[in-house]
Amino acid sequence: MARYDFASDNTAPATPEAMAAIVAANNGGFTSGYGSDAISARAADLVRDLLDADADVRFVTSGTAANAICLATLCRPFEAVLAHEHAHVATDETGAPGFFGHGLRIAGLPGASGRIDPAGLTAPLAAPDQPHWQPPAALSVTNATEYGTVYTAEALQALIAPVKAKGYGVHLDGARLANAAAAGFDLKAIKDLGIDLLVIGGTKAGMTPTEAIVLFDKTLTRRFDARLKQSGQLPSKGRFYAAPFIGMLEDGAFLRHAAHANAMARRLAAAMPFRVNHPVDANAVFVEMDEGRLQALQAAGWFVYRFLDGSVRFMCSWATTEAAVDDLAAALRRIA
Amino acid sequence: MARYDFASDNTAPATPEAMAAIVAANNGGFTSGYGSDAISARAADLVRDLLDADADVRFVTSGTAANAICLATLCRPFEAVLAHEHAHVATDETGAPGFFGHGLRIAGLPGASGRIDPAGLTAPLAAPDQPHWQPPAALSVTNATEYGTVYTAEALQALIAPVKAKGYGVHLDGARLANAAAAGFDLKAIKDLGIDLLVIGGTKAGMTPTEAIVLFDKTLTRRFDARLKQSGQLPSKGRFYAAPFIGMLEDGAFLRHAAHANAMARRLAAAMPFRVNHPVDANAVFVEMDEGRLQALQAAGWFVYRFLDGSVRFMCSWATTEAAVDDLAAALRRIA
Amino acid sequence: MARYDFASDNTAPATPEAMAAIVAANNGGFTSGYGSDAISARAADLVRDLLDADADVRFVTSGTAANAICLATLCRPFEAVLAHEHAHVATDETGAPGFFGHGLRIAGLPGASGRIDPAGLTAPLAAPDQPHWQPPAALSVTNATEYGTVYTAEALQALIAPVKAKGYGVHLDGARLANAAAAGFDLKAIKDLGIDLLVIGGTKAGMTPTEAIVLFDKTLTRRFDARLKQSGQLPSKGRFYAAPFIGMLEDGAFLRHAAHANAMARRLAAAMPFRVNHPVDANAVFVEMDEGRLQALQAAGWFVYRFLDGSVRFMCSWATTEAAVDDLAAALRRIA
Amino acid sequence: MARYDFASDNTAPATPEAMAAIVAANNGGFTSGYGSDAISARAADLVRDLLDADADVRFVTSGTAANAICLATLCRPFEAVLAHEHAHVATDETGAPGFFGHGLRIAGLPGASGRIDPAGLTAPLAAPDQPHWQPPAALSVTNATEYGTVYTAEALQALIAPVKAKGYGVHLDGARLANAAAAGFDLKAIKDLGIDLLVIGGTKAGMTPTEAIVLFDKTLTRRFDARLKQSGQLPSKGRFYAAPFIGMLEDGAFLRHAAHANAMARRLAAAMPFRVNHPVDANAVFVEMDEGRLQALQAAGWFVYRFLDGSVRFMCSWATTEAAVDDLAAALRRIA
Repeated sequence: MARYDFASDNTAPATPEAMAAIVAANNGGFTSGYGSDAISARAADLVRDLLDADADVRFVTSGTAANAICLATLCRPFEAVLAHEHAHVATDETGAPGFFGHGLRIAGLPGASGRIDPAGLTAPLAAPDQPHWQPPAALSVTNATEYGTVYTAEALQALIAPVKAKGYGVHLDGARLANAAAAGFDLKAIKDLGIDLLVIGGTKAGMTPTEAIVLFDKTLTRRFDARLKQSGQLPSKGRFYAAPFIGMLEDGAFLRHAAHANAMARRLAAAMPFRVNHPVDANAVFVEMDEGRLQALQAAGWFVYRFLDGSVRFMCSWATTEAAVDDLAAALRRIA
Repeated sequence: MARYDFASDNTAPATPEAMAAIVAANNGGFTSGYGSDAISARAADLVRDLLDADADVRFVTSGTAANAICLATLCRPFEAVLAHEHAHVATDETGAPGFFGHGLRIAGLPGASGRIDPAGLTAPLAAPDQPHWQPPAALSVTNATEYGTVYTAEALQALIAPVKAKGYGVHLDGARLANAAAAGFDLKAIKDLGIDLLVIGGTKAGMTPTEAIVLFDKTLTRRFDARLKQSGQLPSKGRFYAAPFIGMLEDGAFLRHAAHANAMARRLAAAMPFRVNHPVDANAVFVEMDEGRLQALQAAGWFVYRFLDGSVRFMCSWATTEAAVDDLAAALRRIA
Repeated sequence: MARYDFASDNTAPATPEAMAAIVAANNGGFTSGYGSDAISARAADLVRDLLDADADVRFVTSGTAANAICLATLCRPFEAVLAHEHAHVATDETGAPGFFGHGLRIAGLPGASGRIDPAGLTAPLAAPDQPHWQPPAALSVTNATEYGTVYTAEALQALIAPVKAKGYGVHLDGARLANAAAAGFDLKAIKDLGIDLLVIGGTKAGMTPTEAIVLFDKTLTRRFDARLKQSGQLPSKGRFYAAPFIGMLEDGAFLRHAAHANAMARRLAAAMPFRVNHPVDANAVFVEMDEGRLQALQAAGWFVYRFLDGSVRFMCSWATTEAAVDDLAAALRRIA
Repeated sequence: MARYDFASDNTAPATPEAMAAIVAANNGGFTSGYGSDAISARAADLVRDLLDADADVRFVTSGTAANAICLATLCRPFEAVLAHEHAHVATDETGAPGFFGHGLRIAGLPGASGRIDPAGLTAPLAAPDQPHWQPPAALSVTNATEYGTVYTAEALQALIAPVKAKGYGVHLDGARLANAAAAGFDLKAIKDLGIDLLVIGGTKAGMTPTEAIVLFDKTLTRRFDARLKQSGQLPSKGRFYAAPFIGMLEDGAFLRHAAHANAMARRLAAAMPFRVNHPVDANAVFVEMDEGRLQALQAAGWFVYRFLDGSVRFMCSWATTEAAVDDLAAALRRIA
């Protein structure tokens, strides 16, 4: 039987805490709609607590939509967003930023292991505006990165400072923010980094589908709900997008589960018979594996993907068990 | 304490059947993503059974997105969709069809109680193409309508036939299709009506947020998942959008709960001390009420809205109780 | 032979002054491109002189594009532009504002003879923001109007003041600004009216295809050329869009020709055997004419159109001759 | 004084033939509008003669708009256009294809000297559709290329055949089609190549701003005028976009002037003291020049640009004189 344990961190079910919160939310009877209910308010408070920040918070249904809406908020169609060339917004969202942003361009920047090389910012930020190309208007960073590495607050600061100096906006894709936090990234430091819009991933953190958009720049909140509604992202029964965050944030499950996922990745890396291509800061292990061996692994039932850099990717999640890691490691040894 | 029982049918919680199905889906361990899992396949089968149709089925997160994506599929930016002038797509979705469809126009048609007057189709269908206005490319109908009335299959046929004769597409907004079915609309007749794309509402039927898009015209399925992904509507954990449909369709809860909602509306209409403005076919009661009395009702804690036609709207749902109807009726009598 | 003299003011050829300026511009040898040439600079100076205003000026190729780009600059996709319900942007540009503005809505306002009734602004400006409808972000006014009437500066002020008080933007569609000016509208007063973006029509004023966009709010000029280029409206050989304005503005031909067109409309109105439906302030005459008589007129070779209000429209232009007016009047008398 | 002779082929004035045709067109009195006039019809006939093809023809105002409209016609927002990575649509139109196409992606392909390497097509055409990336729906080729090289009909055939075998569309950007033809590319062979939409450049060929869109696939013509109008590209005074084509095509000036431009490029290449980086098939010379020498050249008054491949580009046009080439060559020798 096919095993999707390591295919992605979104192949896992939802955590008990998330599910319990949804069930509890459902027991609340009738509520007002479109995010105006008490459960949405409570979840937003918990997100503010998590970040120690006075920010506006909205809950939406998918990371692709959340990211694209943020970028469309920061960047006009004839402008560009600077992002790592392998960022999810650049490579894995079917051009959603260009769709929601009506042609805005993602300008890819290089950098090892998914982290933008600060040197790569210099040229695009220094280039004079001219009408034939889309000039940058925003920076998008991802933490943890697509390659399972984690930026420190200082590393983000080094990227953000020159961008803010130009007056441009900053978006943080936190699809795996929980994993970054569990790896030591200080969530309470985010508010001082100059980030305008943050997406906190619920799905990959072990919730049912939900993502939080955090508006640190509250001037962006004006008519943001109209933007969400027009984008199909202002759900009438908002409590179901908010509740999982309550379940996961109230007692620390958000970080606890992420720490487990990260630990499983380290366990897998330690047992890995193939070369590990990127630092295992968070919940991913990328390895060097030829095509024949990948096919042998898949034939043995393990669904995993070859990634943009040519590595084969193994993702761990809150639901990954030590036994599964050990099973996989054994399978890997058999084909190594 | 404010009571939202009658504010909308989306202020209700999810049904026990929907919740049980979600909990069960979550117990299935790891699955493949993006709608390729067994739960999504099972739910699609049940939708096909409901409609007795060989159609493709996708599950998305909101009715606004589902409708807008359907209209963008059927209509290019320089074309128009014919719809009732008070249709949800025309008046209550913040211009989502124009956003997803990049400027496509909703051309409003008149008709009593939310049903398009077939005579209104003649002129737009007969008008020769000319480049200064957006010519029609599709028809959008809603059943049950915004005013709680229900089209018969024959009435829809009368609208659709001349549209199909022009080669145009047809979309059915079934946000309250369950209520229409409970009122006698034959779901198995839909497949023969010439409808290309149908949205079956889960949310208002008593599910957690989810809607089914049914592609009767399977040629539209090519790359439809890419369209969904780009629109932020291809959720990785697709099982959570599919499961509620399993819970509601497996044992008939979908229609059973809708029949209850409709019955509650009839009960309310029977006890209503104000003039009822539209036939109570489904789960809504629209009444004539002056502003002072509406404010008195709201002051008494009952949140309801004045609608586009000037009526005050009372919506019933699966969760509406006889006691709530009687409480409301008593409150209405006090202010009448 | 068909006669298009009165079908529109864009059926006329270009004026001798415009043509001479184009020929002269062409004799200038090589120039830099994309509006950076000396001819474009000279034309912009003349536009500033015309308006007695320190504004930025760009020359583009069509009024539809010019208007749509202005509205997209002032209004986001989830917002709306208030405009007369029969304004050109609302009815005669194939939805271009929604296309360039990605779904922005034109909210039609009533008003006699093409002038917005100030009372109609009250409700949309007072309505609280809520996420289900597109709230207004800008006002678009047209002078001369679609019905050949002309706003005074005071009348525009009455419309604009409450809009600016809300912080919204203002666009003036001046496709027939020359005719408004010839009718007494003070062009030098525009700069004090709170208008952010003005389009000055070249085409209908008797030029080859060209329109001037005037940016009174210079903060909007940042990256505006990139916006134009992305929209296909930053022509490499910019001199050909600028030159006609030089020819028409240098010696007053712009107003002189418009005064002639207006005079021809008055001559036609004076001789008109049908009821004239709107004040003849500028270069249009709208009359009451039944379908049989319109067809008889067309059969006699005169191409004119029935307009949105049911009137039949006769447009005069710089090229309309007294003899043509008299011919037409005779033809009209024959069918009256 | 700055000299723009070699900065681009759009820095030149219009040819005598184009200007004479415009002046003649203006002497035609009143005409019907929006491309329905006799001059537009005559120009379309001449384009069909040029191509020996029964195709529909429209005249628009800019190459950027023409290309972007063509790509939006062939490719949906969640799809991609395959093009050379340095094609004008990919690098020099400020993202216009993504704007007009609402997020469609340009997928860059490699190839020496601006010509797509056929081997580069294999992978994108073979990749199975999956919803996370934008799959190809069309190919865009450019002749003459951005680097002044020219495809033979056979070379284009090799690119187009596998694309058509997939059922995808094909666009030919002929901004410099005249130069390609003068270099031996058979214009009458285009109709057999499987090209759906062709843009014939007027501007760079020596006309006032105008481009012809040729619809070989006439099924694409349905409502194409509405598309143009919505895009601000259906000029009311269409004769001014059509007339230059009459002037240039009636007596062969189109090819004659292009042959001259190509000859001037060869003359320059022959006298060039720097290494020429690409074959000089058409009217461009790209050379190896370090930054100091480029600045010295610019300081001497010659405006030219460094291109995407690092070369410095010199463009010749119909107006380039032997004397100018010799002056430039002398200047180049002084700094070499």
